[in-house]
Amino acid sequence: MTKKFLAEFFGTYWLVFGGCGSAILAAGVANVGIGWLGVSLAFGLTVLTMAYAVGHISGGHFNPAVTLGLVIGGRHSSSELLPYWAAQVLGATAAAATLYVVFTGMADFQGVGGFASNGFGEASPEKYGMLSALVIEIVLTAFFLIIILGATSKGAPAGFAPIAIGLALTLIHLISIPVTNTSVNPARSTGVALFAEGPALGQLWLFWAAPLAGAAIGAMIWKMMTTDD
Amino acid sequence: MTKKFLAEFFGTYWLVFGGCGSAILAAGVANVGIGWLGVSLAFGLTVLTMAYAVGHISGGHFNPAVTLGLVIGGRHSSSELLPYWAAQVLGATAAAATLYVVFTGMADFQGVGGFASNGFGEASPEKYGMLSALVIEIVLTAFFLIIILGATSKGAPAGFAPIAIGLALTLIHLISIPVTNTSVNPARSTGVALFAEGPALGQLWLFWAAPLAGAAIGAMIWKMMTTDD
Amino acid sequence: MTKKFLAEFFGTYWLVFGGCGSAILAAGVANVGIGWLGVSLAFGLTVLTMAYAVGHISGGHFNPAVTLGLVIGGRHSSSELLPYWAAQVLGATAAAATLYVVFTGMADFQGVGGFASNGFGEASPEKYGMLSALVIEIVLTAFFLIIILGATSKGAPAGFAPIAIGLALTLIHLISIPVTNTSVNPARSTGVALFAEGPALGQLWLFWAAPLAGAAIGAMIWKMMTTDD
Amino acid sequence: MTKKFLAEFFGTYWLVFGGCGSAILAAGVANVGIGWLGVSLAFGLTVLTMAYAVGHISGGHFNPAVTLGLVIGGRHSSSELLPYWAAQVLGATAAAATLYVVFTGMADFQGVGGFASNGFGEASPEKYGMLSALVIEIVLTAFFLIIILGATSKGAPAGFAPIAIGLALTLIHLISIPVTNTSVNPARSTGVALFAEGPALGQLWLFWAAPLAGAAIGAMIWKMMTTDD
Repeated sequence: MTKKFLAEFFGTYWLVFGGCGSAILAAGVANVGIGWLGVSLAFGLTVLTMAYAVGHISGGHFNPAVTLGLVIGGRHSSSELLPYWAAQVLGATAAAATLYVVFTGMADFQGVGGFASNGFGEASPEKYGMLSALVIEIVLTAFFLIIILGATSKGAPAGFAPIAIGLALTLIHLISIPVTNTSVNPARSTGVALFAEGPALGQLWLFWAAPLAGAAIGAMIWKMMTTDD
Repeated sequence: MTKKFLAEFFGTYWLVFGGCGSAILAAGVANVGIGWLGVSLAFGLTVLTMAYAVGHISGGHFNPAVTLGLVIGGRHSSSELLPYWAAQVLGATAAAATLYVVFTGMADFQGVGGFASNGFGEASPEKYGMLSALVIEIVLTAFFLIIILGATSKGAPAGFAPIAIGLALTLIHLISIPVTNTSVNPARSTGVALFAEGPALGQLWLFWAAPLAGAAIGAMIWKMMTTDD
Repeated sequence: MTKKFLAEFFGTYWLVFGGCGSAILAAGVANVGIGWLGVSLAFGLTVLTMAYAVGHISGGHFNPAVTLGLVIGGRHSSSELLPYWAAQVLGATAAAATLYVVFTGMADFQGVGGFASNGFGEASPEKYGMLSALVIEIVLTAFFLIIILGATSKGAPAGFAPIAIGLALTLIHLISIPVTNTSVNPARSTGVALFAEGPALGQLWLFWAAPLAGAAIGAMIWKMMTTDD
Repeated sequence: MTKKFLAEFFGTYWLVFGGCGSAILAAGVANVGIGWLGVSLAFGLTVLTMAYAVGHISGGHFNPAVTLGLVIGGRHSSSELLPYWAAQVLGATAAAATLYVVFTGMADFQGVGGFASNGFGEASPEKYGMLSALVIEIVLTAFFLIIILGATSKGAPAGFAPIAIGLALTLIHLISIPVTNTSVNPARSTGVALFAEGPALGQLWLFWAAPLAGAAIGAMIWKMMTTDD
């Protein structure tokens, strides 16, 4: 368990350090900034890279919703659900703390602002309401689980799953950064919410509820698509 | 058949939700928007991810022109053509409906506008005429089929086809968004045309005719290149 | 030979239609245009996709300099050099002609301009002189051949070569579009030069000489790195 | 050893020519420039492409910190450490010299400026201080080594390591270009510092110390995660 715990800790650290870090440090710089396209690529590459690196140790979830969906889908032991969640939230929080140290070293630092946290209503990048946030987080997490369960199933070609899963997270961000700043991952949302200014902590419930619900729905759709195979 | 039908339904849902969704929600945002490059990547990644996830269930077409080309190329049963088309159009329409719900939740929502629909003349992003639209949709769908038939042929390395095919769709969008907003997929065109303002429904015939003709031509070029192998 | 000829014809057609097409149609559009990053990706994806599709038929060169380098490297029959070159130049020219038809269908069409041709001096995108053009085309084509020979060698993992080679072409464009608009491929340069306004035809000699010289140098470096293996 | 030396020389040449070259020539051009996203992709693709090409000859390090981490991780002979470092620094310097020749051929050339060198304080792209620079270079190099050691371990699927490692370098640049212009590679920092205007040479110590320290930490974290496997 220690090795799995460490793999999930460092994997989720990397997801938040790379994904939220690129958003905080590099997205909005004038002329040469990486924009939401760069941030989307960064999030996906955190998962692609660490899934190849430590996927064979812990399964490479880095996300409480993924762990739940894999438990529901019969791919992971339910007894490891809570330890995995703990490792993921701790890793995300440690990454956010490191980013805080780096970010405050900027010469004209003026507060962390939203700190790449997730939100809806006034806290949505393009001011989408709560219903839009719920719908998109549920739909996207459901498809994320369908892709994870499908790309790691016996019918799929071996070895390619980290590419499919990592790039699925890129795709998810390409769609939904304007709506919620994209969660589909309660640990990622929690890590930065602890440091963010604004309503992030008060809205954090949605970024646990919707991804977990979406993951459960995705696992059930996958079962429906494959029963009697 | 039910499992195949569901795989094509959800796969085409993902193609429209991800591709058209990124275009509607994220493409044009000032400074950090993902632009046509991000939209092109999104369309390609919908196919790459779902082809790895459910390709072993249904073949992973997600596109009536692809199904037609595979039937002509002798790779798919003609008896499944119409059920596949039905699943694809239904999935595309369900995705467009979900996007409609999300999009209308924007604080300063002012109508869906083109809603990522395809068009020519005044409805072309850069005002290309009907001949340009016909030529580019036919040529691009023909090459899409050549790549699909080639990358899934026995001579090609196993397991890589979803990468080649998904990134082919990205490439196709990089070329042709300015001309027609890129179809090469009648289901994708139909799903959003049902919700779009403007001439999308009246021009929908071209985005069935040209991709289907192009797919047939591509399948025939492939046969010509491989006969007597 | 007919099948190989067709594979090289259509592969080079795709390279020019996709790479030069994305540059002509989509690169410079305000706000959402794909820029040189999108064009770089498009060129690379033309090779990645067609190498998976028809690489097992013809080897997937799509470029006279690549064919020369493979002949020098002992990987391809010298008797096929000229037929391959003919297929490549014809395919590139046919693609440029098709792009011409599409492009002239734009409502406010005002001439083809440079038509994505290659150049130096006044014809260089950022006004680099002839020496810079020679150096960068030779160096980049040499590394292109090192990557092609290496990624297709017995020591390299099987099946991944189209990814390495296609993305090498993307990388080459990321570096050198400002200098020469990036050739490393005499067929690509010839196809569009036949339709371009400006000095493209008069400068075409450099985009045969430098890529061919670079390919020969790359093949010799590769031999030097692997002799006595 | 000669073949390994040549592979590391040309591999590191490519890393600097492609990564720093794209930054110097193509990043900041108005409207169509590739920005930091393009530069990030270019750096990653240099490693992805050359790791497929010559990884089976030398291991494909192209970076003194990587060689150190692999020695500490027990994956590479310590007797080759200094020859590898020499090849890497020479290759980086040769590439910087070639870039210098190309860059000075620009019509309105006005000095090389920072020449894609690394820096902190006034030399940081977004003016981050020394502590931020140290933290981010150490953390990113540590994860780079975790990914390298993990993706090339026996538990990981064979053949995919160059994709994971190359795209890890892309990700690292997406995060940290604003802070230090991204090193994680003392050879890359040294090569361009020899030609750069400004404080690059005086700050070079940090871009040896931090990547080497980070690589050692990464190798130790990897051992901790896998002991008793």
